[in-house]
Formats: sequence, structure tokens, C-alpha cells
Amino acid sequence: MTGLLDPLMTDPHVATIMSDEGLVRRMLVFEAALARAQARRGTISAEAATAITNAATIAHIDMDDLARATALAGNPAIPLVKMLTARTEAAGQPYVHWGATSQDVMDTALVLQLRDCFKVFAQNLQRLSDALAQMTSDHRTTPMVARTLLQHALPTTFGMKSAGWLLAINRTIGRLGEAAPRVLALQCGGAVGTLASLGADGTVIARDLAIELELVLPAAPWHTQRDRIAETACFCGILTGTLGKIARDISLMAQTDVGEVNEGAQAGRGGSSTMPHKRNPVSCNIVLAIAASIPNLVATILAAQVQDHERGLGSWASEWRTLPEILKLTSGALLHTTTMIENLEINSARMRANLDATNGLVMAEAVMMALAPHVGRLEAHHLVEAASKTAIADGLHLREVLASSAVTKKHLDLQELDTLFDPTSYLGSAQQFIDAALDAHRNLGKAMAFFDSLITHAVDRK
Amino acid sequence: MTGLLDPLMTDPHVATIMSDEGLVRRMLVFEAALARAQARRGTISAEAATAITNAATIAHIDMDDLARATALAGNPAIPLVKMLTARTEAAGQPYVHWGATSQDVMDTALVLQLRDCFKVFAQNLQRLSDALAQMTSDHRTTPMVARTLLQHALPTTFGMKSAGWLLAINRTIGRLGEAAPRVLALQCGGAVGTLASLGADGTVIARDLAIELELVLPAAPWHTQRDRIAETACFCGILTGTLGKIARDISLMAQTDVGEVNEGAQAGRGGSSTMPHKRNPVSCNIVLAIAASIPNLVATILAAQVQDHERGLGSWASEWRTLPEILKLTSGALLHTTTMIENLEINSARMRANLDATNGLVMAEAVMMALAPHVGRLEAHHLVEAASKTAIADGLHLREVLASSAVTKKHLDLQELDTLFDPTSYLGSAQQFIDAALDAHRNLGKAMAFFDSLITHAVDRK
Amino acid sequence: MTGLLDPLMTDPHVATIMSDEGLVRRMLVFEAALARAQARRGTISAEAATAITNAATIAHIDMDDLARATALAGNPAIPLVKMLTARTEAAGQPYVHWGATSQDVMDTALVLQLRDCFKVFAQNLQRLSDALAQMTSDHRTTPMVARTLLQHALPTTFGMKSAGWLLAINRTIGRLGEAAPRVLALQCGGAVGTLASLGADGTVIARDLAIELELVLPAAPWHTQRDRIAETACFCGILTGTLGKIARDISLMAQTDVGEVNEGAQAGRGGSSTMPHKRNPVSCNIVLAIAASIPNLVATILAAQVQDHERGLGSWASEWRTLPEILKLTSGALLHTTTMIENLEINSARMRANLDATNGLVMAEAVMMALAPHVGRLEAHHLVEAASKTAIADGLHLREVLASSAVTKKHLDLQELDTLFDPTSYLGSAQQFIDAALDAHRNLGKAMAFFDSLITHAVDRK
Amino acid sequence: MTGLLDPLMTDPHVATIMSDEGLVRRMLVFEAALARAQARRGTISAEAATAITNAATIAHIDMDDLARATALAGNPAIPLVKMLTARTEAAGQPYVHWGATSQDVMDTALVLQLRDCFKVFAQNLQRLSDALAQMTSDHRTTPMVARTLLQHALPTTFGMKSAGWLLAINRTIGRLGEAAPRVLALQCGGAVGTLASLGADGTVIARDLAIELELVLPAAPWHTQRDRIAETACFCGILTGTLGKIARDISLMAQTDVGEVNEGAQAGRGGSSTMPHKRNPVSCNIVLAIAASIPNLVATILAAQVQDHERGLGSWASEWRTLPEILKLTSGALLHTTTMIENLEINSARMRANLDATNGLVMAEAVMMALAPHVGRLEAHHLVEAASKTAIADGLHLREVLASSAVTKKHLDLQELDTLFDPTSYLGSAQQFIDAALDAHRNLGKAMAFFDSLITHAVDRK
Repeated sequence: MTGLLDPLMTDPHVATIMSDEGLVRRMLVFEAALARAQARRGTISAEAATAITNAATIAHIDMDDLARATALAGNPAIPLVKMLTARTEAAGQPYVHWGATSQDVMDTALVLQLRDCFKVFAQNLQRLSDALAQMTSDHRTTPMVARTLLQHALPTTFGMKSAGWLLAINRTIGRLGEAAPRVLALQCGGAVGTLASLGADGTVIARDLAIELELVLPAAPWHTQRDRIAETACFCGILTGTLGKIARDISLMAQTDVGEVNEGAQAGRGGSSTMPHKRNPVSCNIVLAIAASIPNLVATILAAQVQDHERGLGSWASEWRTLPEILKLTSGALLHTTTMIENLEINSARMRANLDATNGLVMAEAVMMALAPHVGRLEAHHLVEAASKTAIADGLHLREVLASSAVTKKHLDLQELDTLFDPTSYLGSAQQFIDAALDAHRNLGKAMAFFDSLITHAVDRK
Repeated sequence: MTGLLDPLMTDPHVATIMSDEGLVRRMLVFEAALARAQARRGTISAEAATAITNAATIAHIDMDDLARATALAGNPAIPLVKMLTARTEAAGQPYVHWGATSQDVMDTALVLQLRDCFKVFAQNLQRLSDALAQMTSDHRTTPMVARTLLQHALPTTFGMKSAGWLLAINRTIGRLGEAAPRVLALQCGGAVGTLASLGADGTVIARDLAIELELVLPAAPWHTQRDRIAETACFCGILTGTLGKIARDISLMAQTDVGEVNEGAQAGRGGSSTMPHKRNPVSCNIVLAIAASIPNLVATILAAQVQDHERGLGSWASEWRTLPEILKLTSGALLHTTTMIENLEINSARMRANLDATNGLVMAEAVMMALAPHVGRLEAHHLVEAASKTAIADGLHLREVLASSAVTKKHLDLQELDTLFDPTSYLGSAQQFIDAALDAHRNLGKAMAFFDSLITHAVDRK
Repeated sequence: MTGLLDPLMTDPHVATIMSDEGLVRRMLVFEAALARAQARRGTISAEAATAITNAATIAHIDMDDLARATALAGNPAIPLVKMLTARTEAAGQPYVHWGATSQDVMDTALVLQLRDCFKVFAQNLQRLSDALAQMTSDHRTTPMVARTLLQHALPTTFGMKSAGWLLAINRTIGRLGEAAPRVLALQCGGAVGTLASLGADGTVIARDLAIELELVLPAAPWHTQRDRIAETACFCGILTGTLGKIARDISLMAQTDVGEVNEGAQAGRGGSSTMPHKRNPVSCNIVLAIAASIPNLVATILAAQVQDHERGLGSWASEWRTLPEILKLTSGALLHTTTMIENLEINSARMRANLDATNGLVMAEAVMMALAPHVGRLEAHHLVEAASKTAIADGLHLREVLASSAVTKKHLDLQELDTLFDPTSYLGSAQQFIDAALDAHRNLGKAMAFFDSLITHAVDRK
Repeated sequence: MTGLLDPLMTDPHVATIMSDEGLVRRMLVFEAALARAQARRGTISAEAATAITNAATIAHIDMDDLARATALAGNPAIPLVKMLTARTEAAGQPYVHWGATSQDVMDTALVLQLRDCFKVFAQNLQRLSDALAQMTSDHRTTPMVARTLLQHALPTTFGMKSAGWLLAINRTIGRLGEAAPRVLALQCGGAVGTLASLGADGTVIARDLAIELELVLPAAPWHTQRDRIAETACFCGILTGTLGKIARDISLMAQTDVGEVNEGAQAGRGGSSTMPHKRNPVSCNIVLAIAASIPNLVATILAAQVQDHERGLGSWASEWRTLPEILKLTSGALLHTTTMIENLEINSARMRANLDATNGLVMAEAVMMALAPHVGRLEAHHLVEAASKTAIADGLHLREVLASSAVTKKHLDLQELDTLFDPTSYLGSAQQFIDAALDAHRNLGKAMAFFDSLITHAVDRK
């Protein structure tokens, strides 16, 4: 059974990876790989390793039984090892989970989940980046009003706005590349991190196990040093923040009162049970909900770094429900944003109309900057502020008010005034910034190739 | 299928109530009750109401279909109403969900869940309070060392410590009683809170619906005023804080190095996969994990109060996964704490031994207070501080060091010194505080009777 | 020196109360009152009490010295007691802080701060409630569009919207009344909560001290049971959530694109350094900033309940900067909201214009409900949904589209259609809900009288 | 005046950098550098730039006036620009803040603060890393008990424990190196991010301004893309988590009941106002308090990424008090941890004694692993578990119980048993892990050299 809200709020691939079965599947992968690594070293026999590998399949595990046994044992590793042992042929039985501890298998299984999630993230981030680059390129000169503190401010272009989104997404792809080599590290330390039960062979077996699992081999076990986990959560927090920013902008532009964009139509989507005319911004709703939830889940993970000695009491367990939720929700926000951007309906005519809606007030700064060299910045500010108030009060266009002002007349002729009131003449460096953003997008390929080499193995989907 | 960690981290009753099915079941209860309330007013026919009531059963709902349809619609109410309509006989069909909006049925179903959760909470809080009162009474004179900043400080009794836990639990029972009449309120406002589609009959139908559902009738719809929801989350946050404090104390006392208590034994529980001698504090682990998670989930709910106009974009949806998680985890912490307290193994001998472990240092204040009237508070502090350092440095009992001090000799004879070093002679008002705590416990009955009258109806268990 | 952002983000009264000096002032009040309570019992002499009372004045304390000494001692109580002792005449010197511990004076001083904050809160909540009641009454029939998920939905009135705000504020006043008797409680427990150093007199002295300070006498010391503190933080969290909801609505209505309200003008306020025409919603900006910060500060306080034994390591200290910040910011949000509501400029004409902006689409539900009895709810929904799409696509008024539909014609004549498209004819129970909200407001007097009796003493302002 | 708790909870350098004056000082640095960059381009005259540079000094700013004016204006940039203009000679006056917006100067001043904070962080991280490396090296073979879930588990060494701390600190130094080039970036976008008011010269002036300020020149303005700020907060959150983990371990080891370490003595430090013998872990108290506060402050910053359009309403302002608090508290935790580690008193004898306190139970795994090849892992587990229970119940040493067991006798002789019970014989790969940690420490130099080149300029201290 799927959770009622999972199809709505998560990426289906990540939902599978981060599901209970996804975890248990990877715990079994760990146990089988451990046995093979130990067989390579001669710690256990090849038959034992084969027996364990053969038995280590999710088909043998009754998830409801496992859940019940977990309640008694305190974690799922203890009963899973028992179940696996019971299904393993005689030669292998004594060597199931040999020398490992619950946290080794749970943490490494988590890292295997993270690797597969990162792969999905990388793919969707590339898709989103491509879609944003296309949008930025398509609308680099589409004029619209820029809004500060929800007030009309100055002209900008829609491409300039999406260039900001694009650059932030690209920076976050860079962060994933930096975090991955730290995060995708084997955890194998035995009961307290010394690998005592493997005697002199600990580091060799750990190395071979890392090779088996295609994971990074860390300098030492990290079971109660959770900075790698915290870093993963922070990555998700930073990413969903950017996604939330995109959704916030789009939802504000999609207001009935603004009408500049619309989430693309899809049959049966975004309707209201009582208001048949409505086109609700369903994706924005979900992305914003997720962006509001993730920061506090990240806080739980950050705080969970304060772990006691060689196994944290409470702190480790506080990650168990929180981290999967972070990854699932992040994936959902990313997928919704990606499809939303790919299908966004853009109403350039309305953008242009809104730019004109305030009778020239958005060009006030342009006029002020033009007057400032003549009368000083503060004086120009006062003058244009006063003219703006007159324009609002009398329902006039600001150009008209200024055109009848003695000071303005003295310094600007009517043609200059007309040019000052053309929004496309007042876009500053927008085109250069857009170029820089598109350049950054074109350079993504290298980062992505690195990922492909790092993240090769996906348990659920092979 | 149960979630892998649900049996470990939640109360089974609350897990059922707050499950996806628990929600959908109550959404159907709402739709049926709405139809009956409308039939009573004559808005729809009695046949229609009967047809809807008959169809409104969870047996007709395929939860996986509903999950898939929810992903498209954006919330589960829209597809559920469609499914219900499809299962309703002709007479009822046009009147399913008549005049209501998605948030009406989702919010009221949530309130029905909360009522049933509160009932479970009240029962378990009573059990916990009873167990703590018994423990307080049993151990009112069991001496142990009090610790401040994790250092031995002065003597206290175990009953004095548990009296503090008891009083906090009782205050929280009081808070539940105050919150319940605000929280357990019908939400019925139609599309935007005006009940426009019910014409002149809105308030009458709402009143009858509240009667049907045995819920409080609020002054007005509250769909985007989420203070009632925030209050519920805060209640859970305050409660789990107290439970976390209890678990923290017990886990510190259960350290191998301290050995004053142990979580009661249970077959298959608290073992380690690699260390056969271990008795892990499994309940403390879970309670502390929950107490570390809940505050941040509460923060999400508090922040979700900032809702846009007549339906919050993102903010409302951010409650959907968060609030059930809060209630489930709170219930788990409460159940774990209750059974832990009921079965706690208390080692009075070790408590007494630990009190003596520092060679009389914990009686330093007693001596200081006895000297202070003679030499002044600061001078007494310096004197005893110096003697304490000597005792530590030379491995002597503080009494010996003081007995050989000229200043001490001048003001205290040896018999007075001996009495000053008897921990049971230095418990101040502990017994009176314990009496006050047990009094407060005895007065709980009234609060509980109120609950029983308020919370009569439980959908899952009828 | 004032903090740079304090005048912008806090109420000046609360800034004074919660300042460092405000804390120290009340710590001295505690020490003096303790001495007098002990003199009444005969524990110390009347001269000693007088000497301590005379010395206990903030004028004697160099705050910078105290800050430096605090860094060494680990808390401000230890050096303050030393400073106070040094300024006390001989008779009193040995008895300064007699039998008390650092946490007694710091916690009780905090409670004295809370009492004075609550007084400011109660006054401002009354002001805000009065202003909202007036606004609700004035605009009970002012039509405007209700928006769900930021889309135009149905008509409502501005008074209906503000009635929702009013009811939430009134519920929160109720919560303050319930919390106050728990929160405003003396903390006096000595080193570990037993009042051991006061011998048999502990409870009597504590009672007299509570009388001196006009605080509630609790059943027992509560130093490591922080539910009272958590409750205070939660109150602030719930309140700022409601204030944030108000600010959110107003900021959305104040968008240039909407123009329905404006924060009242004030010289020098809300300007932009570069855009002279702008009228920024400065108060909304601050209230929303605070509403975004408080939930996470509340989470810190909730988590801090998990305290070790008889003095929490880290947990208690994590409250020291967090709780004052919560109270200061909450006060700022309350004051900004109050003055904003009192001065709000309301543009009823624009409200009415916006209602008409979608060519009748907001009346779609009204038509659907009118058709539903004839053709069934789902069929009516489909029909009106299709007509809405046609209206949008062809730029027509929905009434025109429907007027030319065969089905509509069959069931509704043109006059009925006209009535259906009059927004004021489709307000359901709005007027009754407004009446209920105004009734609730009128009943506030009683709650407020209770406060006045509870909160009589304000250290800073007498 | 210093805040009462600042000397206790912050690094004095960072307190200065992140103070109100530290911000304003850097805002003035921005304005002066902007003028010079514009003079270089010829936008304004050299005299104007000189006049502005001369006037831009904190000595001219009355901070209380600025605070009051900030309350009216809504941010400190608007009144500061006015004050600066008033102090600038005629030639410069019209060109103060030319083309810039409030957020440009506030964000860039923040980045300048961050650069100087990073420098302090880098220095203290190096000190801490050095001290941990020394401790790890000194105690690489000092045996102590490893504890999991607060229960004695197996032997380890103190150097192995500190190697874990060391590696985590080193990873975080790596993170700082990765974040710095993204974070230390100029913000210069004008009113809405297009630099419209600078016409065709925007990007050139921005480049020259970045050179003036020795900051990274970003691809485009990032005012409402707050991922750089979020990343900074996350860095602090990850770092304080590691510091909290260290403090947690030390505070547990410093318990009176454990006695393995003590914070180094310092006159007047760690005393208690009532218990003269106490040596409170003052630094742990502060570090743990900070580690409990930071995650929730980080959550505020993460959530603040959801910014509206070209200037966030509420979201940007929610950073203003939060980010300085994060940096100040992080610096305090880092400084406390560093001095604590440098001065830690380590009691190796007590470590050894605690290892022996459980009558050989901590060697249970060693025996189990030795028996497992003979009897199978599960059987060995059962056998040793039973023997452990007997040892506990009868107060015997585990070796004795096992020595009298038939199964044990069959597979292990007495000499083998003795070796199995020698804790130093059961340390697995601890020494190799320690070597790897020390290697990582030795490689820090390169990362640090990079920092020195990146972070050259410190406004407060030049």
C-alpha cells in the first residue's frame, strides 16, 4: 500500500528508494556484500558467503513480521539478521552479520539509499536546469514589472527573473557534487567503531566491502559523527529553499489579480470541488508546503549530531523517520517544480499590461536618475516622490505630472521624457546577467559527468 | 501494511486513528452526517441522506486508487467525493458533499481524529500519573544524590524526583482540558467560509451537523485561522518535553556507571546484535528520539498559521503530513514512558552507594549553611570550598578534613558534624513537596470526568 | 545603547522589561524580597533584611563588569550576588541570597519579567481586538472577493474577513488567561529543589516570598520542569501565527496589483531609497519576519524541556537568549499589527472592482448550486466548468455564456440569472458569523478584569 | 554596552564583527568603495568619490539616532544613506549610494562580515584541530570503555574517541573552503537586480566594486536567491553539531559518577553559588546550549529562501536578527570547545578503572567472537548472554562464569580466556583509524593556505 499523500508529494523513484522495503533491500545487500568481502579475505568460507548472498533477498522477508519484531528489539537490524540467518543454509548461518553491528548495516543501507536518491536528484536537476535555461533564453526580452515588497518597482524581463532561478539551481548542483564524495561513504565499525571483532583484518575487509558496494572508504567509522548526514539534510534544505522561491514567484504571478502565468493544464488537475471555474496552482501548493516543512526536519537532523559516545541515545533514532521524509519531500518538490517549469503557460501580454497599470510610476527611478545629475539625488528623489503622489491622487500618468513641472521642464525635454518612460529602455545590465546565467548552464555538463561516474549503482532499479 | 517503525514509535490505537484509513473513514462520517443534517432541515430528502449514509463506508474505497487520484486532484477530498458519489444510489447522488468544500471535510475529519487521540492520551496520562504517584509514594524517603549540571550536588529522595515528573504530567492534563473545547470544533464553511451555497440555512445545518458529530459548534468557520491546530501541536510539544525529561533522567540513572534504575526486562527487548550482556534502555531511546523530533514538527504547524486569505497556498498542505506525525509520535512517547514507569526496576542500594561515593562532598552545603551564621556566607563558602579541594586532592572524607580545621572546631562539635553528614537529615521541605504533588494527583479525577463527557465518540472503535 | 533593530522590531515597554537591565533589576527585587521573607520568619534579622533591600538597586551594578564576570562564572547570578554582597552593610552581608541558588533568582526574575510582559500583551491585545471589532462592524457589508489558493473564488465581505482575525485574537486572549496562573509562579527550591538549606522553614519562607512578589505559590519547585516556560513560548507562537495571518492577508491585499488596502501613511515611513513612488508595507514586513522566526525559537524552548536531573546542562542555558527574543519579537509583532489595523486605509471601491474583474467567474458556484437541484451536482459542476472555460477563452462574461446555453435556459430565466450574478446576494451566513464574532468581542471584558487582578505589579514602571 | 551574555557565549572578535557597529562600519565601506568604483569609470567625479570616502566613517554616526530612524524607515540603509549624505561635502552629496539599493549595501556589508567571521573560524578551527590531533596522538593507546546507548560496550582508546572528533572537524574545514567562494560574493543589483540606474556601466562598476572590496564577482545579483546565505547558516549548523557532540561526550565523561575528564581549572570559573565543592562543566554547558539553539535558527534561514519576486516581504527581514545570532553563537561554541580541549584534564586511571567496573562484561563480545567459529554466531550470542546474566545476578566476574561452562571449556583454554579478557587485546583497527585521522590533520595546511589567500581583508581590525 502506498501512503495516501505519497503520489502527490514525492517522486515515485525516491518513494521506492526511501520506502521501508527500499531500506531492507539495501540492508540485505550490505549483509551479502560483507560476507563476500570476508570470504575474499578468508575470514569466512566461499560457501558461507554464497549461502548468505543467496538468502539475502527481500522476497524472504515478511515486512509486517519485521515491523512487529522491530518494536521489541528497538531497531530493525536485530530481527532482520535473525530472519536472514534463519533463511541461510547451514554453512553460512554462523557468519551472517559477522563482526558488524546494527548501525553498520542501517547506516550503510542509508548511504546506498542516498546514492540512488542523488542519482534521481541529479537527473531532475539537469532537467529543471535545461527547462529554466530554455525559458530564460526564450523570454530574455519579455518585459514585465519587477516587484519589491510586493509593490511594483521597476521594469525587468521574465528571462531575467528566471535567470536568477537558473543560477541558484546550478549552484545547488555544484553543492551536490561537493557533498557526494563525503556522504557516499561506507559505515563499518563493529560494535563501537574499532572493528574489534575482525581482529587484524578490519581495515582490509572494510576496504573490500567498500569496493563491493562501490562506496567511498572513509578514514574511520563515522557512526556517531553525523556531519555527513547533516550535510545531506542541509543540501535538501538549500535545494527546497530555491524550489520554494520559484514556486512563490510563480504562485504570486498566477494570482487571478496578476494573471501573468498559469500552471500548465492537465486533465483532472487543479480543479475545485465547489468552484468549477478555478485553476488552482496545485504544484505551487505542494512545493510551498514542502519548502515550509523541510527546514524544520533539517533542524532535527542538525540537532541529532549531538550523539552520546559510541552510539547516540535518542539522537540516532531521531533520524530514522526524519531523513527519509526529507528525501521524499525534497524529491517531490523537485519533480513538481520541474514539470511545472516545463509546462508553464506564460502570458506575455498580461505581463506587459501590468507594467503599464500604474500610470508610469514604475519608471519613477529612471526619471529620478535622469534628474539627479542636475538637481542632486535627494532633491530628485523628493521631486519625483511628490510627482508620484500627485499622479496617484489625481489619477494622472506620471509623465503628464512631470511634463508640467517647472524643474523637469528645465532639465528634460519631452522626447527625453518619452524615452525615460519606455520600460525596455531601462533594463540596465539584464542582458549581460542573462548571458552569464546561460553560460553557467552550459558548463553544467562537466559536473554531471562526474556524477555519472560516482553514482553508478542503483539497487531498486537494476 | 504497517510502517516499519510504527509499532516501535507509536501507540497502536493512535496509529489506527491517524492512519490514512482513519482519516478517510472520518471523512465519510462527515459526509454522511452532513447529509442527515441537511435532511433534517429539508434541504435534501431523507432518501438522499439514507443513500449517502449507506454508501459512506470505507469498504467501498480502494485506498491505492484514492492515493493516485489525490496526486492529480491536489487533495484527497475531491476524488473521495467522486468515489462516494459513484457508490451512492440515484436519490442521493446529486447531494453528496452538498454545499461543503474540501477543507470542511478534511478539517472536520481531522478534528474527529483529534477527539479520539485525546481520549487515548487522557487514558494513558491517567495511567502514567497513577504510576508516578505510586512511585512517588513508595520512594518518598529513598535517598539518592541530586545532580546539577551532571555533578553530584546534595541529597534528595527518588520520590522527590518523581514528584517533579508527576506535577508536570498533571499540569499537562490540565492543559488538555482547557484546549479540548477550543480544538474539538466543527469546521463547516463552504467554499470560502460564508456557507453561501446553503443560502439562509447555513448556520442551522452547521448546528445540526455539530450535534450529529458531537462536536463543539464554533462562532464561525475557522479554516484559515489555524490557532486551534497550533494549540494541539503545542500541547503535544509540551507533553513530549515532559516525557523527554523523564526519559533523560532515567537514561542517565540507567548508565552502567550509575546503575540506579533499569528499564524493566521483557523477553527479546533491549538486546544488542553484538554485545550479549547489554540491557539497552530501548524505551528511553524512543522517547528521547521523539522528544527531539516533535519541537521542530510543532514549529512547522506554528508557521503554517500564516495562511493566505480564504485557503492557504502551501501552508495548509504543510500540515497534512506533519500533524499526523506529531500525534503518532506523541502517543508513542506517552505509551513508552507509561510502560517504562510501570515496570521500572529501582536499585535503592546503588542510589545510596552513589550518594556516599564522593567522600561527603554532597554534604558540603549543609556544612556551609551551618557555618554561615558564625562566619558569614561568603567566608563559609570559601572555607568549605577549600576543604573540598583538600578532600579531593588527598582522597579524604570531607568530614575528616573539616574535623581538623580550626575554624570548624570553633563553631561545630563532632556530633554536630556527624549529623551534618547524614544525608537524610538534609532534605529540607522534600516531604511537603511530595505531599503537595500527591494531593494534586488525587484531584485529577474531576478533570478526567470532564474529558469523559467531552470525548464520547470514537469512530474507529465503535 | 539600544540594539539597532530593537525600535523597529519590539514594543518599547517589552524591550525595557526583557533587557539585560530589566532582568538584573528583577533579580535584585528577588534578593530583597527573599531577605524580607526570611526576616518575617526570623531566619535573619530585620536589620539584615533592610540592609539587603537598601543595597539591592540597579544603580549599584556596573553592567559591563557584570557581563565580564558572567563569562567567568557561567551565569549572571553568581557575580551579581557577589556585587550585591559587597554593597550591603555588614549586618546583611552574610545573608544575601541565603538558602537560594542561581536558578531561583534567575527563574523568578524571569517570571517577574513575564508578568510585566503579559500586562503589555493584554493591553495591546485589547486594543487590537477593539480595532478589529470596529473594522468588522464598519465593513460587515463591504463586498470583496474571497480568494482560495490565491485564486478568486466567491464573494465575501471585508467584515467577514476581519471577523476571522478578531475571533482568533479573542481565543488567544483566552489562552493567556489560562496560562497565566500556571506561568506566573515563584521558583524557590535552593540548590536542588528541596530547600534543604532553609531547614524546616522552607515552605513558609517560600509562601511569604510569593506574597512579597505577588506571585503564585506552586506545589513544588519547578526548576527542571520547564513546561511553564514552554507554555509561555507556545502562547507567543500561537499569537504571532495569528498576527502573521493578518499581515499576510493585508500584504496580499496591499499588492500594487490588488490595491484593496494600504498601511496608513506616516511621515518618513515605508519609503524606498531608490523608488520614490513606493509605499512599502513596512509593518507587514516586520510582522511576517517575526512570524517566520518565532516558531523556530519556540522549538528551541520546547526541546529545552529535556533537562538533566536537578539542573539541565545546556538545556537551561539554551533558554537564556531565546526566551527574551521570543517575548521581544512577539511584542513587536503585536504592536505593529495593532497600529496597522488602527490606521489601515481601506479602498472599498477597488474591492468592488476586483470582484468584477473576472467577468462573473466568482459567481460560478452560485449558478452551479442553482442548477444542481435540476441536473445533479456533478452535471452542474461540469456544465459551469465548461461555461467558465468558454468565458475565459472568448473574453466573455460568464452570464452571457450561460444565458445562451440550452440547459441553463431550461432551468433558469434571465432575471434569476441576474440575481445569481449579484455578489451581495450570495453571502450565506456571513452576517450571522460577524454577529457571533462581535458578541465574542463584547465578552472580553471579563477576561481582561481577571488579568488586571492577576497582574498588578510592574517593576520597571512603578 | 555589551550584551550581558555576549562575553559568555560568543567569541569577542566575532561579537565585534557581527555587532550593530560592525554592520554599519561595513555599510560605510561599501558606500565609499562604490563611489570609488564609479569614479574610476567616470560615472561620478574623483572629488565626489573622495568626499564620500572621507565622510564614510562610523565616528559620524550616532547609533541611537540610527536605531530610531530605522524604526521609521523599515531598514537601516535608508537613514544611514541620509546621514552619510548630510556629512558629505557638496561635491559628493548627490552621488552617495548612487544607483544602489538598500539591499545592495546591507547584503554586501553582511558578506564583508562573513569574510571576517570565516577568518576567525578558520583560525580557531586550526587551533582546535591541532589540539585534537595532539590529544589523539597522546592518548592513542589510553584504554577506556566505549559506551553505546549509555551502556558499557567494549574497550576502545581515548585517542580513538578523539580521532572521531578530529576527523569531523577536518571535514568541516573542508566544507568552509568549498562554501567560501560562493558565499563571499558581492551583491550589487540596484533597485530590482538589473542595475538599471547605472545604464550601460552596471557590470563594469560592479566588477570594479568587487575588486575594491576584494570580493567574488557573481554571475548576477543574488538578492532574492538566498542559497549563499542558507549555505552559511548550514555550515554553522554542521559545525556546532560536531562541537556539541564533543561537548556531550566530555560532559558525560565529566559526570561525578564517571570522572574520566574535567574541564581545566580556571580561577573563579565553574563554581556554584551554593555548593562549594562543585566543578561545573561551564564550557560544555555553553556549547551544548548553543548546539541546541543553532539548528532552529538555521531552519529560519533555510525557510527565508522563499522570497517574493525582487525583494522578499518578511523573509529577508527574518534574516536580520537570526544570522548574526548564528554567527555569534557558533563562534562562541568554537572558542569554548577549543579552549576546553586545550586545557582538558584527563584521568587515565579512572578510565582504566571504569573499564574494569563491570566484571568483564565489556569483553563479552570478544568471547562471543572467539566462540562463534566453534558453535555458530547465534549460539555463541545466547551462551555469552546467559553467562552475562549469571555474572550480574551472582556478582561474579564473567571470566569465572565462563571458565566453569562446559561449552567454553571445550573450545577455549584458560590462557585463551585470560587474553580474551585483556581489553588492550581487543582494539581491532583502532590504531589504523587513528593514523588515518592524524594523516588527515597533517593535510590541513593546504586548505588553510587557500583561506589565507581568500580572506585577506578585515574591516574591524585594519
